[in-house]
Parts: sequence; C-alpha cells; structure tokens
Amino acid sequence: MTVIYNKVALIGLGLIASSMALAMKRGGLATTITGYARSQETRDIARELNLCEVFDTAAEAVQDADLVVLCVPVGAMAAVMADIGPALKPGATLSDVGSVKKAVIEAVAPFVPEGVHFVPAHPLAGTEHSGPRSGFATLFDNRWCIIVPTEGSDRAAVEQLEKLWQGIGANTDEMDADHHDLVLAVTSHTPHLIAYTMVGVADDLSRVTDSEVIKYSAAGFRDFTRIAASDPTMWRDVFLTNKEATLEILGRFTEELFSLQRAIRTGDGEHLHDYFTRTRAIRRGIIDAGQDTDAPDFGRTPAPR
Amino acid sequence: MTVIYNKVALIGLGLIASSMALAMKRGGLATTITGYARSQETRDIARELNLCEVFDTAAEAVQDADLVVLCVPVGAMAAVMADIGPALKPGATLSDVGSVKKAVIEAVAPFVPEGVHFVPAHPLAGTEHSGPRSGFATLFDNRWCIIVPTEGSDRAAVEQLEKLWQGIGANTDEMDADHHDLVLAVTSHTPHLIAYTMVGVADDLSRVTDSEVIKYSAAGFRDFTRIAASDPTMWRDVFLTNKEATLEILGRFTEELFSLQRAIRTGDGEHLHDYFTRTRAIRRGIIDAGQDTDAPDFGRTPAPR
Repeated sequence: MTVIYNKVALIGLGLIASSMALAMKRGGLATTITGYARSQETRDIARELNLCEVFDTAAEAVQDADLVVLCVPVGAMAAVMADIGPALKPGATLSDVGSVKKAVIEAVAPFVPEGVHFVPAHPLAGTEHSGPRSGFATLFDNRWCIIVPTEGSDRAAVEQLEKLWQGIGANTDEMDADHHDLVLAVTSHTPHLIAYTMVGVADDLSRVTDSEVIKYSAAGFRDFTRIAASDPTMWRDVFLTNKEATLEILGRFTEELFSLQRAIRTGDGEHLHDYFTRTRAIRRGIIDAGQDTDAPDFGRTPAPR
Repeated sequence: MTVIYNKVALIGLGLIASSMALAMKRGGLATTITGYARSQETRDIARELNLCEVFDTAAEAVQDADLVVLCVPVGAMAAVMADIGPALKPGATLSDVGSVKKAVIEAVAPFVPEGVHFVPAHPLAGTEHSGPRSGFATLFDNRWCIIVPTEGSDRAAVEQLEKLWQGIGANTDEMDADHHDLVLAVTSHTPHLIAYTMVGVADDLSRVTDSEVIKYSAAGFRDFTRIAASDPTMWRDVFLTNKEATLEILGRFTEELFSLQRAIRTGDGEHLHDYFTRTRAIRRGIIDAGQDTDAPDFGRTPAPR
C-alpha cells in the first residue's frame, strides 16, 4: 500500500475508469478518487457502486487533484478540456487513456495550462462490455500501458505516472505518438474494423438467416462477434482520429487478402498452405509472452450439456 | 450407456477423431472403436493414449465395422476411399466430419459400394490445436452437428448416426450440401481466411517488429491469432473445395470493407457508428443461444501478476 497520488480525478466513468478506480483501491495507490461522467445515469450507477466520490461537473471533480485522467472517447476530449483546463491545479499531472495518441495530443495540448504536466497514456486492456458496471480490478494485470511523453514532458511526472500504472498491475513502456498509432493500427484498430465488417456481412446475408449464423457461430465467427460488440462511440472516434495509419494497414490487408483470394480461385494450394503455416508461429509467441492462454478455445467455460 | 454401433472405425486420428473416441467411451456408445492414421507417429501416440484399437492399414481398421467415419482432410478422402471401399461391410454406414460437404460427396460417393449407406456429417466444433493429444470428451457438448443426407440416403441409417452424435453431446440438424457450404462460408471459412490474412499482414510489417505485435496483441489481435493457428492442411483443403461460396462471401466482405474504409477517409462518423451499433446485437443472440460465454474476454483465465 503505497500512495502514489494524493487525489486522482477520473473524467468519464466507463469500463477503463471504473477498473482503474478498483485497481487503485486494491493497491492503495490514491488517498482520494473523484469522478465525473456526462450522463446522470452513469453518475448514479457510479455512486451506487461506491466507485469514487462522484461530482456533477467535471470542474468540481478535478478541483485540487494531483492526477486527472481523461477516460472519455477521443472525440470528446477537447470539449472536456475546455471545461476543466482552468480548474486544473498547478503542478498537477494530466493524462488520458485514449486508444490513439497523435489526435489526443492535438486536441488536448492547447488547453493545458502552464505548470500542468501533460503525459498521455494508453492501457492496452479492455473487454467487449461497456459502462461503470463492467469494470474489475484485475483488468490491467500483466497487460501493457504505453506512456507517450510529449515534447518537454517533465521526467518526474512521467515516472510517477508509470509507477501508478505498475501499481495498477500493468507493465509500462514508452513510445512516441506516431509509432504508437501505427502499432495499434496493426494490433487493434484494423482487427476491430475487420471484425465489425465480417459481422455486418453475416447480418446482411439474406439467404442465410440470422438464426443460422447465430446457431452455427461456434465454427469461428463468434470470436469476431466479441470484438464487434465493443463500444460504438469509442471505435467511431478511433477510426476518425487514427485515419492515416488505419488506412495504410487496411491497404496492406486488402492486398494480402486479394493474393489469397487469387490462390483460392486458381487452386494454388501450396501458397495457401505456406501462408497458413507461417501464421501459426505468432500464436506461439503470444502465449510464451503471457499475453494469452494456451487452453483450447481460450479456455472458454464449456457449454452446459 | 446405450450402444448405438457395435463397431466404429475412425480413419484419421486428429483432434476430431480423438475427441469422438473419448466422447463415445464416455457415453458407452460403441462396443469396439478401431482407428487408423497415415503417419506412424500419430498411430504410436494413439496407442500410447489407448484411444482405440489402432491398425497399420485403413482396410484392417474398417473390417467388420458398422460405422466408418472419415476424419482426414477433405483433400485426402478420395485416396482413403480407394483403399477402404472394397473392405466396407455390406449394410455399414459410412460418414465423415469434413468442413465442406459438396466436394466430399463428389470425392467419396464414387467409391461407396452397393449396400453401404453414405451419410455425410459435419460437427461444428474444434480448437486451434491439432493431433490425437488435443482431443477431449466434451468438445462436442452443446455444439451442432450438421447431417447432410445424400439423395437416396437410408432414413434408418441417417437417424442412427444422429443418435450417435446426440450421444456424443451434440445437437443435430439436417441440411443439403449447397446450403451447408454457404452457411459455413459465412460462419467459418471466410472468418478463418480473414484471420489468417490479418495475422500475415502483422507478420510482414517491417516497421512494427514482431515482438511489438506480440507484446501488444491483447488489444484485439490475439483473438485473430487463435483462429489463424488452426491446422494448415485442413484449411487449405477447405478453401480449395469450397471455392465458390468462399469467393462469394469474400466479395461481399470486400464490398462492405471498402464502404467502411471510405467512411473513415471521408470522416463519416455517423455511418461508422450506425454500423458498429448494429453488430452488437448479433453477439447478444449468440450468447442467448448458448453458443458463447458472456464472461468478459471469453472468460480467459486472468494472466498471472
């Protein structure tokens, strides 16, 4: 139990913020946790769960906070900053949990008052569920949190934030914004867009009824539907704000897909077999790195007979 | 414990056959189970596991069997049939577990002797692991097994096979081969091709090193890698033999992907948000149908701290 910040304010109280609050409590990392959410309903739920001290305005929530974390969709950050900028305490650290970093820096930086340390961050963790009820204290355990210091970021502020994330359970790493956005386009943004697309196609198909797609989903499709059940607002903002990198990776994806499609059309079994053999190795690496389970089917609870 | 077939022969001893053997033993569904695999190594492992009575030739394994199940990749079925056709017992049922049905019927039917009942089937279950050691008795519990009777299939033979699959733990359904191949192109084949492609793209990217892709895979990518770790030979054969339906669904997928790509490029947030909202509903349906778990992240075992 080492207090890292005296007072932490969470702006936005969804899956990430509520999990942060629970993990900070578990580790005794903050003396006081305050919070704010735009919707009355979310604030009511957070109060009912006793997640933190909930305020009806963001400016009140950040009053006197040593760390303020923006946990709202990327597209909402500028508006939030216009509200809270003037209320931030000199010497405080301002961070965020946005899935893209270049756009967040562009949106937030202009509102950061002199004397406040802006240290963007991105914890690589989440589930397909949204809202304050979906949070849990172990969400970040053994996951990565990427810290993206901006030009002239105060080293002490960066290191204190890294300590917080380590206390929350995560491993930390530093990266610049451009590289972050490209890496995430590969490991997260493009896979999400593809999953959304495939689920949309299945939904559209009129010759194959909905109930058949659902009934027979265990054949592989259901893994895609988990990803495609993620929060629509958050993901809309991700694609609108990481446009360049996502379009680049999508271009490469389409190119590869066309080459495999051609191999299917021309009956080039060797090309297919070689490709499918190569992709097996990556899975092994991910399991060895402790980023997934080797249990068959992700160790899903077996369905009841 | 109701014996459904006196003697069952499994040709091919991979994940599906070994799971069938274990499930048949669990339910006491067969008096004798025999088996054959092409590779000496697989036969040795099957003997070591005491999976069934293992023979060194397929013809010996099917001798006197009441049910013979072809559990080899689709592309290998014709060659196997040339071997075992003459050894099949009159009155026996011949089935398979292939992931495509039209091509299997075309490959197998010419070798089926008069008096043998050919009833193709496809259990929709599997994991990313292959080989006899990966089998487990509960693999088919609450999954679907699609029975694809051919023209003139004997009703009694069809119903007996359905009883076996129900005893193994599966729900059964009947479908014609064309419809089966289209449904599976949507729920299984195209998702697999897409997952293979995305994992291949990540592997190729030189600016983002392998270790970064692996390190940060928990952001969504690792779900794709599970699917893309499936058996290369099996999947090569699936795409080569369900060419038409896969190419059709791939065409639709590309069309949708291009429309979402365009929305990203033009900044059409409403289109993206609407699309992402629609896809959430399918997930709910799959969970309500008992085909997946509602636990966050598939209920993956939390990573150790």
